[in-house]
Amino acid sequence: MTQTPEVHPDPFEVATMKAAVMHGIRDVRIETRNIPQVRPGHVLVRIKTVGVCGSDVHYFTHGKIGPFVVKAPIILGHESMGVIAQIGEGVKGLQTGDRVTLEPGYPCRTCEYCKKGQYNLCPEMTFMATPPVDGAFVEYVEWPADFVFKVPDMVSDDAAALIEPLAVGVWSVKRGGVKPGDAIVVYGAGPIGCTTLQAAKAAGATTLIAVDLEDYRLDLIRELGATHTINARHEDPQRRIREITGRNLPESHSGADVVFETAGTLKTCQQSMLVARPGGTVVLVGLPPNPMVELDLVAAASREVDIRGIFRYANCYPAALQLVQEGRVNLDKMVTQRYALDQTQEALIFTDEFKNVSMKVMVDF
Amino acid sequence: MTQTPEVHPDPFEVATMKAAVMHGIRDVRIETRNIPQVRPGHVLVRIKTVGVCGSDVHYFTHGKIGPFVVKAPIILGHESMGVIAQIGEGVKGLQTGDRVTLEPGYPCRTCEYCKKGQYNLCPEMTFMATPPVDGAFVEYVEWPADFVFKVPDMVSDDAAALIEPLAVGVWSVKRGGVKPGDAIVVYGAGPIGCTTLQAAKAAGATTLIAVDLEDYRLDLIRELGATHTINARHEDPQRRIREITGRNLPESHSGADVVFETAGTLKTCQQSMLVARPGGTVVLVGLPPNPMVELDLVAAASREVDIRGIFRYANCYPAALQLVQEGRVNLDKMVTQRYALDQTQEALIFTDEFKNVSMKVMVDF
Amino acid sequence: MTQTPEVHPDPFEVATMKAAVMHGIRDVRIETRNIPQVRPGHVLVRIKTVGVCGSDVHYFTHGKIGPFVVKAPIILGHESMGVIAQIGEGVKGLQTGDRVTLEPGYPCRTCEYCKKGQYNLCPEMTFMATPPVDGAFVEYVEWPADFVFKVPDMVSDDAAALIEPLAVGVWSVKRGGVKPGDAIVVYGAGPIGCTTLQAAKAAGATTLIAVDLEDYRLDLIRELGATHTINARHEDPQRRIREITGRNLPESHSGADVVFETAGTLKTCQQSMLVARPGGTVVLVGLPPNPMVELDLVAAASREVDIRGIFRYANCYPAALQLVQEGRVNLDKMVTQRYALDQTQEALIFTDEFKNVSMKVMVDF
Amino acid sequence: MTQTPEVHPDPFEVATMKAAVMHGIRDVRIETRNIPQVRPGHVLVRIKTVGVCGSDVHYFTHGKIGPFVVKAPIILGHESMGVIAQIGEGVKGLQTGDRVTLEPGYPCRTCEYCKKGQYNLCPEMTFMATPPVDGAFVEYVEWPADFVFKVPDMVSDDAAALIEPLAVGVWSVKRGGVKPGDAIVVYGAGPIGCTTLQAAKAAGATTLIAVDLEDYRLDLIRELGATHTINARHEDPQRRIREITGRNLPESHSGADVVFETAGTLKTCQQSMLVARPGGTVVLVGLPPNPMVELDLVAAASREVDIRGIFRYANCYPAALQLVQEGRVNLDKMVTQRYALDQTQEALIFTDEFKNVSMKVMVDF
Repeated sequence: MTQTPEVHPDPFEVATMKAAVMHGIRDVRIETRNIPQVRPGHVLVRIKTVGVCGSDVHYFTHGKIGPFVVKAPIILGHESMGVIAQIGEGVKGLQTGDRVTLEPGYPCRTCEYCKKGQYNLCPEMTFMATPPVDGAFVEYVEWPADFVFKVPDMVSDDAAALIEPLAVGVWSVKRGGVKPGDAIVVYGAGPIGCTTLQAAKAAGATTLIAVDLEDYRLDLIRELGATHTINARHEDPQRRIREITGRNLPESHSGADVVFETAGTLKTCQQSMLVARPGGTVVLVGLPPNPMVELDLVAAASREVDIRGIFRYANCYPAALQLVQEGRVNLDKMVTQRYALDQTQEALIFTDEFKNVSMKVMVDF
Repeated sequence: MTQTPEVHPDPFEVATMKAAVMHGIRDVRIETRNIPQVRPGHVLVRIKTVGVCGSDVHYFTHGKIGPFVVKAPIILGHESMGVIAQIGEGVKGLQTGDRVTLEPGYPCRTCEYCKKGQYNLCPEMTFMATPPVDGAFVEYVEWPADFVFKVPDMVSDDAAALIEPLAVGVWSVKRGGVKPGDAIVVYGAGPIGCTTLQAAKAAGATTLIAVDLEDYRLDLIRELGATHTINARHEDPQRRIREITGRNLPESHSGADVVFETAGTLKTCQQSMLVARPGGTVVLVGLPPNPMVELDLVAAASREVDIRGIFRYANCYPAALQLVQEGRVNLDKMVTQRYALDQTQEALIFTDEFKNVSMKVMVDF
Repeated sequence: MTQTPEVHPDPFEVATMKAAVMHGIRDVRIETRNIPQVRPGHVLVRIKTVGVCGSDVHYFTHGKIGPFVVKAPIILGHESMGVIAQIGEGVKGLQTGDRVTLEPGYPCRTCEYCKKGQYNLCPEMTFMATPPVDGAFVEYVEWPADFVFKVPDMVSDDAAALIEPLAVGVWSVKRGGVKPGDAIVVYGAGPIGCTTLQAAKAAGATTLIAVDLEDYRLDLIRELGATHTINARHEDPQRRIREITGRNLPESHSGADVVFETAGTLKTCQQSMLVARPGGTVVLVGLPPNPMVELDLVAAASREVDIRGIFRYANCYPAALQLVQEGRVNLDKMVTQRYALDQTQEALIFTDEFKNVSMKVMVDF
Repeated sequence: MTQTPEVHPDPFEVATMKAAVMHGIRDVRIETRNIPQVRPGHVLVRIKTVGVCGSDVHYFTHGKIGPFVVKAPIILGHESMGVIAQIGEGVKGLQTGDRVTLEPGYPCRTCEYCKKGQYNLCPEMTFMATPPVDGAFVEYVEWPADFVFKVPDMVSDDAAALIEPLAVGVWSVKRGGVKPGDAIVVYGAGPIGCTTLQAAKAAGATTLIAVDLEDYRLDLIRELGATHTINARHEDPQRRIREITGRNLPESHSGADVVFETAGTLKTCQQSMLVARPGGTVVLVGLPPNPMVELDLVAAASREVDIRGIFRYANCYPAALQLVQEGRVNLDKMVTQRYALDQTQEALIFTDEFKNVSMKVMVDF
């Protein structure tokens, strides 16, 4: 870990690196790129491990996500960790050889959103693997030092890379206002469902209900902390959630304190409004495929059920790292398959097609 | 004001009173009822003035609102004020002759919602003019003393009665988290739009945009504090709101900090999501006629626009009274027509049919 | 557990019970009292176990706490659990034989504090073992049903009684705004320190520092979750806390996110201000012996360190019960000695004199 | 306003400007300095008007404030406005000729405080007139464009400069959590007391009590919105505040919702704890001369009165400008005397010595 990789600073002999570049739908090629120069305030990270995210898969299979369209070759991947290869001028607190995880987006730092701490809403965000910004399926990434976090020894490489989906969970839980003793529901037991449920547990939720269609995933999320799992193929989630969350009140006042929708389907969006208790909160983490959604808005509004979306996260990496380091969240258990950088395309295909036997696929370097 | 009305305590000669009783759709009759006995902790109020609310009109014309159905004769009216006629045992801080306004709902006081201060969500609320509970189009009402508030001399009878719709505005503004310097939009310039806009102004909002279809109402809300009015018949609200709220940011980041939907139409519900800035809030004060609403949920969620409903209000009367007393909110200007108790049916019909030339209709005793 | 104790409803033959009555300083006698009648909305609980609290000891040894002075014989004890012996009219959700824990204070339910959910600040609170209200060192207590909570089977009798000090911890953590990933400090590793630290852990705090003078207590709190313990006899807490909480910032910006002062000494009050990071929070759970405290207010205020006191708790029992039931908080391990009801005086004396070898003393019935 | 001042871009002929430089205690001299070069992202502002702040006076008379010591010549002044003379590379939304107000501090933008939006707590803040950073008693200031705010036409030059003390008021009110209908107290009717009271009024406070020793200042703050003024030479503030804020509760529960201490004396610090109601908040805006303060901490803590300090402000300029533009806050009325740049020393001396006949002294260019 203390050996610095050989990065040639000679300006006449630029060092090169391998990158997995997406050229079009289902077309990722291994290519050679120049290693970037390190600017002041930045560091160069030699990437070691990258998780495959559903959004990577979506770009790979559809060429776009909502308004973001892949128009030129792009490197995907944004759940990454590695080792610092070079330090830019003025960087403090980091040194070459440090194991680090990369927060994949950095903001403009001067707009009103940035100044208020809501940098995830900055209109000039630079976010990995979101066209036209390159991501982390590549050997070296140059990144602002304050969006690179040192990883404690007891946190594995996989866990370090998966701090990214955990940050989504931590942010969702913060937006949802989870408190000790709360009952929460997570629709969707995929990677984001797993990190969100674990983050909710870490924030004190004691009744943790997961809903999915795949027993494979429900079994895994139960190991990660779910107190109740519901396979919606076999049980009516709404009825079960009412039973579990019933209290010394009429049935109209049963329901979860906070409901997290991570499945991204119309049906789960609709149902999430109905299984929150009066005064509860629904956090829309996933998004349905079509923007126009028909839902029982009156049921939500007239019971003062808040509906909150999330867009990425802000200031969540330090807490996420702490939670993993102290054993409150288990990310390693979520890793189910591994591929090498040269097999990035295979990793994307597998993630797309085998949700019923996988949770998180990693690409190693 | 210091003369006590003659209420006969003789148990053998029960005093009677007049009441405007709804027997069916568009059928309100003046009848005689017994004056209620005053229980400990309660007071008897001789009603002087009652405002006609849209919900009264809805029961009168449709016989129901959502799940609440008029099945037996009911007295409507819940925006009321009067003078204390009799004091129950153990009541402190109130005396006969006091001018008072009545908060029209009281809760069970022992459920978890009550104990947390969210009594508006109490499953056992007793709320005036909501079947089967009688309201205030009647000469005397007996009510718990802690839901009866003394009115300062400088607050008129009309304003005292209209504390009720102002409480809705105060609660909406609280739920919306309005802060000094905010830009807000109110869809619907009816009575609730007017109280909400004024409450938002009182909480520091400086850009106050009202949208309606009636110039009569837009003119009035401008007198009450709107800095911009938009008649949606002639202008595109969305474009205008973007212009007004444009800042030193891309157009995607224009929009209001808080949007209040008080019109209760599908279209305004849908649009309210789109004219909030990223990170802003939509408060659904009105509710669309059909519970199932198709809206661009992705536009809201992916920009972290919170959607919050309101159900009545909790703990808003003292602040509402203060705002009127100190001249921050003008309720008197909202009163446009008056009727006598015997004309309650006419008052309901007028309110239903002449929105274009009226704002708030009062029934006097 | 299903056997109902024999309570004689015959009005001519009132049943009696034993009570441990404090008649003066260091003078507690076992006496006979009438079993109270059960009023509507109330239940009669046969007490099984009561924890001895520091405030009980303080009344026992000093005859007063601040403005509260023991002027007439009083029954102490307010950390209690038992079994429901009789149900008052109109009580729902509870039945005879239920194991329950008693929230020891109930409010007036009608003042503005009660209506806002801040019932702990109600000026007419009825609180056990606070003169002149009797407490729970007695065989039967009659109490409002909504301040009596059913205890799940897997929660022990001891833990059920100790929900009370845990409620203090839960409230302190809520007031402190503890978030996942936070670093917290607890001054004082007594019973309240132990419940507060555990509640903070349950709310997601990952760095948990306890400061005390007794190794016995520090060893125990480490078992309960402290990640760092500091014996102030041997180490400078301020320096150690700075080291532990140092981050990638100047030393001026080290410190804990939230500091809980539970020791109730002048020195720890003073120090708590200094070991919070800029923007952090100090929660004063304990109170120093003299109300006038000299402290470096400028150090707190100019760094925007909030100082918040707590007074008992509101709405914490349900969450506290959940945390124990789900194994997030361990109360059983805090119990170090037991006495019988007849030995209440011995229990009080022991608690007063042997802090160095005890944590929580229980009185059994 | 549209004429651009002549700034010579010729690198071989550097333009110069006048500056009022403090060389030692009570020693301010007018000197010549080079006009600074404009860096990318920055603007050059030709200063027009600067308010004299108490902290300027304190440096002038004592040579230091707490840990900040004047060791080298320094330009004081940080309440400034002017006209943009030159625009740096990449600056959007501002142009030469724009009237602007300068937020006097800018942060590092990369530390955790900056990223969270708490930039006022950034350990590497660059703040005008805080040694060793020069302030605004000078003809030209170069400043980051995002801390320079365009001033609407209807806001006067004086008001534009005084956005700075208003920002302190806006921040204090935010920290205090002032809500519509609140009763607030401001100790100290100086400039900060006046802006804080007005900001509290703008946020909806309806009972606004000011306490001072000078009738001159109390008369002025009453014109600015105080509903009650108390001259502590003639009346006992504590008794009067209890009377004014008495409600339908025992006297123990009287008191203000939020108390702002802006006088910076030991006595007012102490008293501020006692005149807040249970559950209320004290905001320490001023700071007592000695850091060690003896106060009745128990009275605050046991009534859950929060004590919060403030350090400058964050993200308050836009709201402050809005409040002035919409007439919610009157800053012009606070200006009582004017001096020219050459008379900066006289302005400082006057401000120091004549508090009884002045509120805010301006230095014009």
